[in-house]
Amino acid sequence: MEENKTLVEVTTDKILRYLKEMQLQVGDKLPNEYELSDYLEVGRSTVREAVRALASRNILEVRQGAGTFVSDKRGIANDPLGFSLIEDQDRMIRDLFELRYLLEPKMAGLAAEYATKNQIVQMKKLTQKIETSFREGTQEHVQLDIDFHTMIAEASGNVALLHIIPIINESIALFNKNYDIQHLKIETIDIHTEIVQAIERRNALAAFDAMTVHMAINRRELQKIIGEKETN
Amino acid sequence: MEENKTLVEVTTDKILRYLKEMQLQVGDKLPNEYELSDYLEVGRSTVREAVRALASRNILEVRQGAGTFVSDKRGIANDPLGFSLIEDQDRMIRDLFELRYLLEPKMAGLAAEYATKNQIVQMKKLTQKIETSFREGTQEHVQLDIDFHTMIAEASGNVALLHIIPIINESIALFNKNYDIQHLKIETIDIHTEIVQAIERRNALAAFDAMTVHMAINRRELQKIIGEKETN
Repeated sequence: MEENKTLVEVTTDKILRYLKEMQLQVGDKLPNEYELSDYLEVGRSTVREAVRALASRNILEVRQGAGTFVSDKRGIANDPLGFSLIEDQDRMIRDLFELRYLLEPKMAGLAAEYATKNQIVQMKKLTQKIETSFREGTQEHVQLDIDFHTMIAEASGNVALLHIIPIINESIALFNKNYDIQHLKIETIDIHTEIVQAIERRNALAAFDAMTVHMAINRRELQKIIGEKETN
Repeated sequence: MEENKTLVEVTTDKILRYLKEMQLQVGDKLPNEYELSDYLEVGRSTVREAVRALASRNILEVRQGAGTFVSDKRGIANDPLGFSLIEDQDRMIRDLFELRYLLEPKMAGLAAEYATKNQIVQMKKLTQKIETSFREGTQEHVQLDIDFHTMIAEASGNVALLHIIPIINESIALFNKNYDIQHLKIETIDIHTEIVQAIERRNALAAFDAMTVHMAINRRELQKIIGEKETN
């Protein structure tokens, strides 16, 4: 298929290879347009278009006046799976929960096996911050909760889970921002703590079970809310 | 966050809302640039940029000379999860298999509950085509296999699975194109048939088990290949 590619697409591929070969990391700065143009042996306008394409895929980030950098979004596009196109949002949330239910217990089990000490420290900090957000009535806990589950995905050592979990959780968070269920908040604090303790004790089964309980209780609450809507 | 958006981003959102409100389906044509510009009350260059952004997200498709259409890629970007950035491809395949293992048995079980008669007919056709491709030694079976698993995802009635499975399978296919294991092909034909039969009999447990066997056998073979590489 290589021969059907436009010059911009070929240049995009070249830049991707360049990132890998030079082992550029998140936040690293790329050479400027002149240098890239020289190095890749294409015109500057082609380089510019290729960079723009990679920026729209969240692989690069162009900061006005400062240059082009490797994006910290790890190439995960905004709404990469087209969830915003799904009409029936209640159904989408239900289906995403099904997915979390299938993935996250195993992920917690893997985290119990592979988490580094530093990751466990981070998890503890996040659970504390979530508790503070609940107590002070701020909305910060939505993003912190995503960070918590993302940290577990990272600790699982599975790169595929690491790329998928944040998207699933972010999509769910979008629609959960407005729920305000007090007893669910207390449950969340307790179960998050239980999950982290199991991971710290390197007990994969206990971590699996605690996460399963977390998912099941969340889904039960979700069902109540969706159920109530449907009967109204 | 709305107030931080650029005019192009706001226009992009407006077009997305327009698609939903007008209930435009895959393949439907959009109004031309003049009409959209009038309707959305922004300049034509802004419309053009917004359309280009949606095309790069595979939500719209611009066909030269014919107009702008709703893309059949359902808004799933190319490499939406940034898998092409992952350096260690063996590890990525292994981790993606872990994901399939967690998701696809449940998916087959759901398909046994919810598949329509037409979907079952399609599945049968796909298994036959895959068999033909194996017998004739063509490479068509790689795409057909993705289509087969996508059809089961569709039949599961879970929109989240439907959006995720093709990406996982396509990523795996990318790296599996060159494997040529004869006994695995025979196994694949048999187990695909068994999965479809279980779905047709509405036996969710049998479908779950057959898919589990399929995943386990594939993973076992993958381990052998990766293991051999590592000892070489």
